[in-house]
This record gives sequence, C-alpha cells and structure tokens, in this order.
Amino acid sequence: MSGAAPRGVFITFEGIDGSGKSTQARALAEALGARLTREPGGSVGAEEIRRLLVEGDAARWSPETEILLFTAARRDHVEKTIRPALEAGLVIVSDRFADSTRVYQGAARAALRGKVDLLHEAMIALEPDLTFVIDTDPDVALARGLARRSGEDRFESLGAGFQHRLRAGFRALATEYPDRVVLIAGDRAPDTIAADVLTRARAFLAERGHG
Amino acid sequence: MSGAAPRGVFITFEGIDGSGKSTQARALAEALGARLTREPGGSVGAEEIRRLLVEGDAARWSPETEILLFTAARRDHVEKTIRPALEAGLVIVSDRFADSTRVYQGAARAALRGKVDLLHEAMIALEPDLTFVIDTDPDVALARGLARRSGEDRFESLGAGFQHRLRAGFRALATEYPDRVVLIAGDRAPDTIAADVLTRARAFLAERGHG
Repeated sequence: MSGAAPRGVFITFEGIDGSGKSTQARALAEALGARLTREPGGSVGAEEIRRLLVEGDAARWSPETEILLFTAARRDHVEKTIRPALEAGLVIVSDRFADSTRVYQGAARAALRGKVDLLHEAMIALEPDLTFVIDTDPDVALARGLARRSGEDRFESLGAGFQHRLRAGFRALATEYPDRVVLIAGDRAPDTIAADVLTRARAFLAERGHG
Repeated sequence: MSGAAPRGVFITFEGIDGSGKSTQARALAEALGARLTREPGGSVGAEEIRRLLVEGDAARWSPETEILLFTAARRDHVEKTIRPALEAGLVIVSDRFADSTRVYQGAARAALRGKVDLLHEAMIALEPDLTFVIDTDPDVALARGLARRSGEDRFESLGAGFQHRLRAGFRALATEYPDRVVLIAGDRAPDTIAADVLTRARAFLAERGHG
C-alpha cells in the first residue's frame, strides 16, 4: 500500500429494521455524492442470492446455511462493487454489511458468532472505515418496519423480543469496534439525524484527507 | 452414538463429467433399494442454489464465492436429506459430494484447497462411508459429456486440459482417503462397471452389518 495511492472510504449504516438506517444511508450518499449500495445484495450476483434469503418461510434455511449464503453474497458484493469503488478512490456507503450478520446471528444463537467470524476472516477480510449505528427504540422501529412492508417479511416478522436483543447487539458494536463505530440516536427527526451524521462523516473524511 | 442405534450408510460417486458416475450411482441405488441424491442440489433449497451455480456465464462467480455457494447448498442437503436418511438407518447414494469441491477448486487454483477444507470442517463435518471414483479417460469422458448436454455448460465447457487435471485430482483422493475411496476403472461397459461396484458395495455393507 503506497502512501500516494488514492484509496476510497467505505462507510456503513447498521441498525434494526425500521431504525431509519436506509433513509440515513441514502441521505448521506446524496449529500456526499457517494456511491450507495446495500446488503444483502449490492451486485448482480448478490441480489440473486438476496432473493433466496429474504423470500419465503423464515425457517427455510438453518442459521448455518444462512450464514454461508450471506457470506457468499458479501464476497460477490465486495469483489464487484465495493473494492472497485475503493480502488477508484471513491466514497461508498452501504446500507448494512458484515456487522448485521454478526448481530443477527449472535442474537439468534450466541454460539454462531464464532462461525460468522471464521467465515468473515477467511472469505471477506474487509472492514468499513466508518460505521453509523442508528440506535432506535425497537417499539418505534418495529411499528415503522411493519408499516413499511418491503417484501422482507422474513426479517420483519421476528417479533419485539428479538428486536430488543438485536438493539443490544448493535449497541455493543460500539464497544467491540470503538475505532470505527459511532452510535447515532435514532429517536429524532430524520433531518436532525441526517445533519448529525453528515457533520461526523465530513469530519472523518477531512481527517482522512478526502475532499 | 450408542452401538445399538441404527445408523445408515452414506455412499458417494465421484469423477469428471462424462465419467459415467451418474449412471453408476443410479444403478447402485436401484440394486440396493437405496435413496438416490445428487450435488449440487439434493434438497429443495440446495436445488435453488444449484441453479445459481450451473446456469449462466462460467466467470459469473469467483472461485471463492463459488466455494461458499457449494458449501451453503451442501449444508442444506446434509440437513434436509442426508442426515435424516442416515438417522433412519437407510443407505443413501449421492452423485457427487464434498470431494468434487475439493478436486474442482484444487484443480482451478491449488491455494483454494485450504479454504475448501476450512469451510468443510466448520460447516459440514460429514464424510461418506464409502466413495467410488469412476476413473475414466478424459477424452472419452469429454466426448460423452459434450454429447450429453445437461444444461450444465458451465462445468462441461472447461476443456480437455482442465479435465486431465481433474482426473489426477480424483485419482489422488484414493491416496488421501484410503479408508473410504475406491478407484473403479471407467473404460469398461456400464454393466461390467455396475456389477463390479455392486459386489464391492455389498461386501462393505455386509462388513458393516447392513443387510
């Protein structure tokens, strides 16, 4: 890695369904003129794998098969979309990335976290430069999520108790990865949150020497 | 594992495309009244993943993504089809299993074999009791494969040089796993091969106390 080589910046948004993270990811990408992507999906192949993951019965895949499919989709997403953007020196913003798999699978069964980490290290080995966790009360978020209905019934029908465990998991990321994870209070007006996120992102980019 | 518990027997067939292994897998399953399955596929979910793997451009997935998709399909196949059959004390015969991934990915790029093994150990951790490698001359096999055309153009368009490397890889399995892998000369009449395989399978089952 030469110091002179241009290198992009990889920013991710994480949080429970209905937290407002997708709205915030879109708003930040627009404000920065950055590339916007999402998971699961984000490349032609990964979007096909996404369809296997988000459609159909929630018990269709075991947690282990699900981790493998998420990792396959992520590998394709990184190869085809994220790495090319970073190599071109661009800023790329993703609505979810590996932290979602860590938190969802860990909340489902703690013992799975080891397998998630093993697959990530062997097959992905890329972390975001900056991650915004939009931390929203699960009761508020669940109401938003259920109202929205995005075809991802599989994830949105998990119930309030599970959503509370997920929130705790997303909050814990800030402790586990303090260098890159920023908690953002999600119980505010979307414009207020967007302004907060933009200020922090601009400070980060300035520090990194990005425009 | 109690000694009294009935436990089935898992038999696999391996070899290059056009080797005759599918014909032989079918013949053995019929002769034994065993359940027949195949990879990639073998369960509802795994057949859906199979479609992503065998359709479309050969360069559609990187070798790493391909390994993850094969392992996801295999995990579902083992959970939904193979383990239930074994727990019911049945004999189950599969046309391809993990050895195919080991040989194909190893032939494509030797360094991938480590990732294949890591994923197998972490996510599958099941080996066949008995594996027949149908060892057929690649020129004969390739002609058969191309004549057959099964919609799996992705694997059948790899060319003669690659098929020769694959044959070497399948033959090497007998050295790597001498306790379960039997090499079967594939350049003989299908009925002669079937009789040879059946004799060996029956001897193995008798040794294991299976009818």
